[in-house]
Amino acid sequence: MVVGRTAVINAMQSGKQLERIYLQNNIHGELVDEIKKLAEKTQTPINKVPVEKLNNLNVYNHEGCVALIAKVQYQDLQDVISFVVEKGEAPLLLILDGITDIRNIGGIARSAYCFGVHAIIIPDKGVGALNEDAVLTSAGALEKIAVCRVNSLMKTVDDLHMNGIKVFASEMKATKKTFDCNFKEPCAIIMGAEEKGIYPALLKISDEQFQIPMTGDFDSLNVSVATGIILYEVMKQRN
Amino acid sequence: MVVGRTAVINAMQSGKQLERIYLQNNIHGELVDEIKKLAEKTQTPINKVPVEKLNNLNVYNHEGCVALIAKVQYQDLQDVISFVVEKGEAPLLLILDGITDIRNIGGIARSAYCFGVHAIIIPDKGVGALNEDAVLTSAGALEKIAVCRVNSLMKTVDDLHMNGIKVFASEMKATKKTFDCNFKEPCAIIMGAEEKGIYPALLKISDEQFQIPMTGDFDSLNVSVATGIILYEVMKQRN
Repeated sequence: MVVGRTAVINAMQSGKQLERIYLQNNIHGELVDEIKKLAEKTQTPINKVPVEKLNNLNVYNHEGCVALIAKVQYQDLQDVISFVVEKGEAPLLLILDGITDIRNIGGIARSAYCFGVHAIIIPDKGVGALNEDAVLTSAGALEKIAVCRVNSLMKTVDDLHMNGIKVFASEMKATKKTFDCNFKEPCAIIMGAEEKGIYPALLKISDEQFQIPMTGDFDSLNVSVATGIILYEVMKQRN
Repeated sequence: MVVGRTAVINAMQSGKQLERIYLQNNIHGELVDEIKKLAEKTQTPINKVPVEKLNNLNVYNHEGCVALIAKVQYQDLQDVISFVVEKGEAPLLLILDGITDIRNIGGIARSAYCFGVHAIIIPDKGVGALNEDAVLTSAGALEKIAVCRVNSLMKTVDDLHMNGIKVFASEMKATKKTFDCNFKEPCAIIMGAEEKGIYPALLKISDEQFQIPMTGDFDSLNVSVATGIILYEVMKQRN
């Protein structure tokens, strides 16, 4: 943890990646403005919290501001894409929409790393903190694979389109099957949460929807298993 | 729970399936012999425990014997095979060796049911009880798919061979890949625990070993994800 306004500012200025900043919800001033500015620049989520929450952290002199140091090294999406393209490879990206269970994210990261995904893209809100538990359930993969934290998945899909990357969405009601898709081209695949699926507006701006074909009428794969199957299909097509 | 020697005997005689019998480790007599005989016949595991364990269950008058009612309806392997063959289908069976994590077993059962596995085969020892949690993480699949509990996986492989069923083993060091195997014929697939893999003697009597091909040198898929990928490959070949 980084404790106190100046310490948090120094951490961000020196390039230290923060998982999240907890900021007391009724404080103002120059340092607070500076924290907000730097957080926006570094895409660090800020959670506004009542002072009691900070007091409960049992840290000395928090000045209304405590930050968690990131266990995962977040990377800039555009940098990752440029790097992959310069290597002469077709980007393969994985977008996680609304998947909050840390154990599922860990399992997904393992599969993603095994099958050569270039980066996992997660929103900066509505996702569990990628803490020690997440790294553990990923068998270390979360420390090895690039993770990009973005402010808006909608805007990210636009950015991907600008980069010539096709966006696929895994959707149980789609008519196309996994093996009907061409995953050899530069692509990103959106996975939604098991119960809610992919956010409708996000689904709508995706280029192609597909489903994993199954026997019978019980279509209830675990999201981490479904992701593994899709990435296996991609890997088969690409090799 | 079924409490008391006579109650446990009556339960087994009336065909009620028991998950496990907890028997006090220093008791003897006619009823105890009868319990052991019936347990062997119905393939119900007996755990010998000190009396304190039974006392801690807070049940009245346990007489050294308490049994858990099975949440899963166990089926006889030969019955399942005969039924599938009579339907004109090629049996597809899944053998779990040393997979103890209930959440993994639940996830595996979901995938197995989604991809048309006819039965999951588990040993009667060294596996977590298929309790309410297991059924929950399986999204109900464990209540729908046939589960066969066997005394020895080694003997089971012999039985499968006698039935003309080929036994494949998922093994990270194998040279054959998933897609090099012919899964259309009657087959069983052995999955081992993530760290220990498949029991060497069991691996030895399997007919064919294969691995899931991966990019790079990080070969660390979660066992539930690996099972899903293999069953997806089988389903693709069979349809």
